[in-house]
Amino acid sequence: MKINLINPNTCIGMTEKIAASARSAALSSTDIIASMPTHGPESIESAFDEVIASAALLDVIKQGEENQVDAHIIACFGDPALDAAREIATVPVIGIAGAAFQLASLVAYRFGVVTTMTRTLPTSEHLLQRYGYQHLCSGVRATDIAVLDLENVADDVYRELKAECERALFEDGAEALVLGCAGMSDLTEKLSADLKVPIIDGVCAAVKLAESLHQLGLKTCKIGQYGSPLDKAFDGRYQHWNSNKNITKERYI
Amino acid sequence: MKINLINPNTCIGMTEKIAASARSAALSSTDIIASMPTHGPESIESAFDEVIASAALLDVIKQGEENQVDAHIIACFGDPALDAAREIATVPVIGIAGAAFQLASLVAYRFGVVTTMTRTLPTSEHLLQRYGYQHLCSGVRATDIAVLDLENVADDVYRELKAECERALFEDGAEALVLGCAGMSDLTEKLSADLKVPIIDGVCAAVKLAESLHQLGLKTCKIGQYGSPLDKAFDGRYQHWNSNKNITKERYI
Amino acid sequence: MKINLINPNTCIGMTEKIAASARSAALSSTDIIASMPTHGPESIESAFDEVIASAALLDVIKQGEENQVDAHIIACFGDPALDAAREIATVPVIGIAGAAFQLASLVAYRFGVVTTMTRTLPTSEHLLQRYGYQHLCSGVRATDIAVLDLENVADDVYRELKAECERALFEDGAEALVLGCAGMSDLTEKLSADLKVPIIDGVCAAVKLAESLHQLGLKTCKIGQYGSPLDKAFDGRYQHWNSNKNITKERYI
Amino acid sequence: MKINLINPNTCIGMTEKIAASARSAALSSTDIIASMPTHGPESIESAFDEVIASAALLDVIKQGEENQVDAHIIACFGDPALDAAREIATVPVIGIAGAAFQLASLVAYRFGVVTTMTRTLPTSEHLLQRYGYQHLCSGVRATDIAVLDLENVADDVYRELKAECERALFEDGAEALVLGCAGMSDLTEKLSADLKVPIIDGVCAAVKLAESLHQLGLKTCKIGQYGSPLDKAFDGRYQHWNSNKNITKERYI
Amino acid sequence: MKINLINPNTCIGMTEKIAASARSAALSSTDIIASMPTHGPESIESAFDEVIASAALLDVIKQGEENQVDAHIIACFGDPALDAAREIATVPVIGIAGAAFQLASLVAYRFGVVTTMTRTLPTSEHLLQRYGYQHLCSGVRATDIAVLDLENVADDVYRELKAECERALFEDGAEALVLGCAGMSDLTEKLSADLKVPIIDGVCAAVKLAESLHQLGLKTCKIGQYGSPLDKAFDGRYQHWNSNKNITKERYI
Amino acid sequence: MKINLINPNTCIGMTEKIAASARSAALSSTDIIASMPTHGPESIESAFDEVIASAALLDVIKQGEENQVDAHIIACFGDPALDAAREIATVPVIGIAGAAFQLASLVAYRFGVVTTMTRTLPTSEHLLQRYGYQHLCSGVRATDIAVLDLENVADDVYRELKAECERALFEDGAEALVLGCAGMSDLTEKLSADLKVPIIDGVCAAVKLAESLHQLGLKTCKIGQYGSPLDKAFDGRYQHWNSNKNITKERYI
Repeated sequence: MKINLINPNTCIGMTEKIAASARSAALSSTDIIASMPTHGPESIESAFDEVIASAALLDVIKQGEENQVDAHIIACFGDPALDAAREIATVPVIGIAGAAFQLASLVAYRFGVVTTMTRTLPTSEHLLQRYGYQHLCSGVRATDIAVLDLENVADDVYRELKAECERALFEDGAEALVLGCAGMSDLTEKLSADLKVPIIDGVCAAVKLAESLHQLGLKTCKIGQYGSPLDKAFDGRYQHWNSNKNITKERYI
Repeated sequence: MKINLINPNTCIGMTEKIAASARSAALSSTDIIASMPTHGPESIESAFDEVIASAALLDVIKQGEENQVDAHIIACFGDPALDAAREIATVPVIGIAGAAFQLASLVAYRFGVVTTMTRTLPTSEHLLQRYGYQHLCSGVRATDIAVLDLENVADDVYRELKAECERALFEDGAEALVLGCAGMSDLTEKLSADLKVPIIDGVCAAVKLAESLHQLGLKTCKIGQYGSPLDKAFDGRYQHWNSNKNITKERYI
Repeated sequence: MKINLINPNTCIGMTEKIAASARSAALSSTDIIASMPTHGPESIESAFDEVIASAALLDVIKQGEENQVDAHIIACFGDPALDAAREIATVPVIGIAGAAFQLASLVAYRFGVVTTMTRTLPTSEHLLQRYGYQHLCSGVRATDIAVLDLENVADDVYRELKAECERALFEDGAEALVLGCAGMSDLTEKLSADLKVPIIDGVCAAVKLAESLHQLGLKTCKIGQYGSPLDKAFDGRYQHWNSNKNITKERYI
Repeated sequence: MKINLINPNTCIGMTEKIAASARSAALSSTDIIASMPTHGPESIESAFDEVIASAALLDVIKQGEENQVDAHIIACFGDPALDAAREIATVPVIGIAGAAFQLASLVAYRFGVVTTMTRTLPTSEHLLQRYGYQHLCSGVRATDIAVLDLENVADDVYRELKAECERALFEDGAEALVLGCAGMSDLTEKLSADLKVPIIDGVCAAVKLAESLHQLGLKTCKIGQYGSPLDKAFDGRYQHWNSNKNITKERYI
Repeated sequence: MKINLINPNTCIGMTEKIAASARSAALSSTDIIASMPTHGPESIESAFDEVIASAALLDVIKQGEENQVDAHIIACFGDPALDAAREIATVPVIGIAGAAFQLASLVAYRFGVVTTMTRTLPTSEHLLQRYGYQHLCSGVRATDIAVLDLENVADDVYRELKAECERALFEDGAEALVLGCAGMSDLTEKLSADLKVPIIDGVCAAVKLAESLHQLGLKTCKIGQYGSPLDKAFDGRYQHWNSNKNITKERYI
Repeated sequence: MKINLINPNTCIGMTEKIAASARSAALSSTDIIASMPTHGPESIESAFDEVIASAALLDVIKQGEENQVDAHIIACFGDPALDAAREIATVPVIGIAGAAFQLASLVAYRFGVVTTMTRTLPTSEHLLQRYGYQHLCSGVRATDIAVLDLENVADDVYRELKAECERALFEDGAEALVLGCAGMSDLTEKLSADLKVPIIDGVCAAVKLAESLHQLGLKTCKIGQYGSPLDKAFDGRYQHWNSNKNITKERYI
């Protein structure tokens, strides 16, 4: 099968790292196509960043559909634009946060989440609520490590991350840890060896779930909430989504 | 005070209608500046539409800030991009759904919501949850009237809408009705006269709340969750958000 | 418009203070009529006090109705007798706690509440639940300052209050603060200047919401839950509520 | 033991009926003292009625305390003034709704509630939430039988009540029924015989729980939330609650 | 009446202790028959222990039914096999945790639970959720005292238990305490004297509730969820449950 | 990898059917070992059946551990004894209900569950709550087809099942369907072809998740809640769980 693995951040280093993780987790018959948007922010660390990245990400979903992939993975822990992507895709779309929560809940009574900036905590909490995993999560902890600082993790950055993981285990009672950023993907093995508890990387989790759906022949139901959007006019820089004729309008009244 | 009243749909008719409603509700000292994005979908009726409109809408927030408005109103019932807008604005940003729920809860024990397409029901439900009004809402009902069909409401469309409102009152036990689309704004008075219960239009409600905050000197707290986003590089069609130097990157690995 | 601003505590100092706050917030066209019950406790600090004050407060609602006011405000943070007042009033009745939560949620991601006695914490928590704002509140904190000690706030009392506000901001993560007692109304400006975050006084918030409803022509729906109570006999000290003939009955069996 | 069984409605017929039920359920060593307020409404069917009855009821709690009873029962399905009563009483105070929910949950997977006026439904729902029994209740149904019409139940009134009970059983899936008005107390046996499911009358349930607490030596914890109210001045018709000297104050400013 | 008081742990010391507590709480007309399973673990301290004890416990319910008892009490704080027991019993089955929560909620605003091993905390939390008492519980605290160490409580074990109780009162704000193990039953009086707050032992609470139901003539509804299980074949060591003929089957395919 | 696929019902036909489904879903490198208990009920359709089957099932987990399997699947829709199994197993244990909910939530906005007996509805509802999927489920529907009648599905039984599925889709708004009994496993393909929506069989879903965990090297965290039970004495028919010496005790006091 072919998986369109999308890094919604426009930072090449993270895309490469994510691709490597995904490939390490994939079956040999799975082809991982790593992609990222041409437009948008280099990293997603605020609601503003996420709104911009979401619009940009949908172009990459469309490209994947044209390439006839069998699944899309949105490889950013906020699972941005997931519903919109499911509307325009014909094949499954999986977010890495949701995927990580699913597998974590299978191997631990309570899992913790260790993420990047304090500011992104509401995003994690919102996702836990959306997917229904709040009561299975012992807490979300921020490291205040910037997304881009994860491209090449220095020793002290790793120590900070590990210390926060330990607080999640010993203070919050976590029994497994979900890494709250696709950029932490390559640290899974080291953390797992150091902490001796299940460490769940959403990228790898999403790859396995995409393969699972594919092997079972399960696809997004296209009748109802995830049906294709109605055809309509799009203006300006979104004219490529335009299914009708273009229209010009005045802006201020 | 100056209010930036944003129709996130790119349909001029709705923008004009919303502006008229807002002006009818505003104090004489309030200046309503109606605006809409140059980019994006003519109407918002799916998660896909909303993602695109959200990115486009932020440009209009930025313009409003440059025009030194005292508040922004996002005049689409999904309250799209509300958190992102609050991050980049220095003055209050109000969504019309949230505003309508607030005033409705002051005049009725339970209020109903009557909206457009069945497909948008999850949006209303998500907003009720976000704002905490689920238990005060007797139900959300869709009319399956398309947003653009509200531009000039024919008699039969009005009858359909009124019939759905009556079901909300008599079957669900609503005691007030929230109109679930900015495009229904001009029907408030007629529905109110016909149904004899409080009819709450979010556009008018938002204007009053914006004026209230302004008169009390209350603005969005810019420390914490709604602080300004960190400076970072934006690529391609979002370079105008770029605070750093532009960077070029390869896309596929 | 005329607003019946009711202090349900029978302490004149607080009534004067509340009246001053309300007038500072009101439009010039709004007439604030400050009132308080002839009967009942001088301050409300327990469920017992609240039950007595509630019965007494309804007389003041009735007086306001006879004076043809356009709205009633119940200026005690417990929003006592709100439903009962809405049943007997024809115009909107607004509680200051509910009003404060509404405006606070428009300017901050999470707001804190700082109130008087520890014993009143369940009241605040019950109100947050009633109005649906629990998830938007970072916590309720008691100062253990008695209501009557707020009549003339000494320096050390202010310092205590400010210290508790700071704990709400720095320990709980509040981004705005709701003052949990009408008697704190006059400290809004000073706290706002000292703490540099939005400080929401429910009295002022309620005045703006009352004006908003009035300007939009919205009144309590009198069909359904807030309909007028059925006529029935009232005995003893409540005979003035008696719509039927008086009846005498034996008490013990 | 001595139980102060309070009918907060001032209708003698209901008081007598409740007393008879309570006595039928009590141990021979239990002395049921039926009482009702000198003041207040003849029946409680609205929030307004409840606020007035609540203030009046507290006098009867005080009388009971002076009579050195061992427990108080508030025999109105709204459990009015329960927290306030617990503050001023030294012995346990039990509401009949809470008592009924407790016993019902012991004999059925889901119980239904059949009550009087549609308007009182929110009261029942609020009580289910307060006590935490929402998920164990299959639904609350109103018969729209007025409280006073229960004094002498005509055949057709009984048929209506029974029909609503059957709907609770067959449509809602109730497996036991809680009678939602103290005035239905005398119908327990007949309904039980006709419907062949557990019928729980709150008056009887409360008597058994009061006896249970008494036999175990359990009393309300008077430290904390149910501690005695602080001494303070009460004005006007509530001067009998006045622990301090009386104070005169002007009312309007 | 006759009560089948079941200790699902196979430790005779605890059975004796529980029997003594139950007898101290029972009316003189109540006959307490203490029983325990012939099969299963000596103490229940994990989900594994509970599953085994649950199957064993049902035999003791069956014996009680054959002895024509009037109620069964499951005297282990996890209320194991409660639903299954209600299915096979014709008379009420009461769990001691549920019983304790009920009485505790009548004498305190918030109660705390003090239990044995940390590992059993999820059991208590699950029970609070099942019965709907989560919001009335200030917290569950583990002492890490093993169940069997409660058979003869040494001074230092009592001190540990009391210290944890004090933390529940002073740190969590509990106003009454529920003892989270039937084996603590005999410490109720001493803790009550030392701590001066209501101490609720589930064994005593369950006895009073069983008597209450019996005196009111209330039994488990046997139509619906607690109806008798369908007759079917049981294999191997469960053949005594077999209502049909025995059947032999191969195990591995 | 080796998977211990456990049918907790002692009916060979179902075990064979489940094994066939699992094998159709498994990778060629996965070895499915179908097993069932020597003891217990032939089908699980009540809480009583489930308690007995749970104790019996743990023996089969132990056998699997001795056979050095890499994962256990509990192939009964109630996910019986899941926590206990995780305590005694060293490798992952997956329940088919939880597995089905996970995959269903990836391909539909809301999924429905179609199960066997009305009486098992609370089991499904409890599982949705346990796993956090209540808000993603449009409803659980019972067909009242007995588990054993699924061994050889007659045409009319299939028609009934399909009709209930259609009600879930058209009346409840389900967009995917979870089959609520392992015995329906072989109907997945036919229902999928007939209904044209995703049909999720928990057996297949669990196989894919077991493979996913195995490939990622994730196992149950054995520190904390799922740690091995403490060694202790087991009496009678559970002596094979006995890690200590056997002890004899008297039963009745």
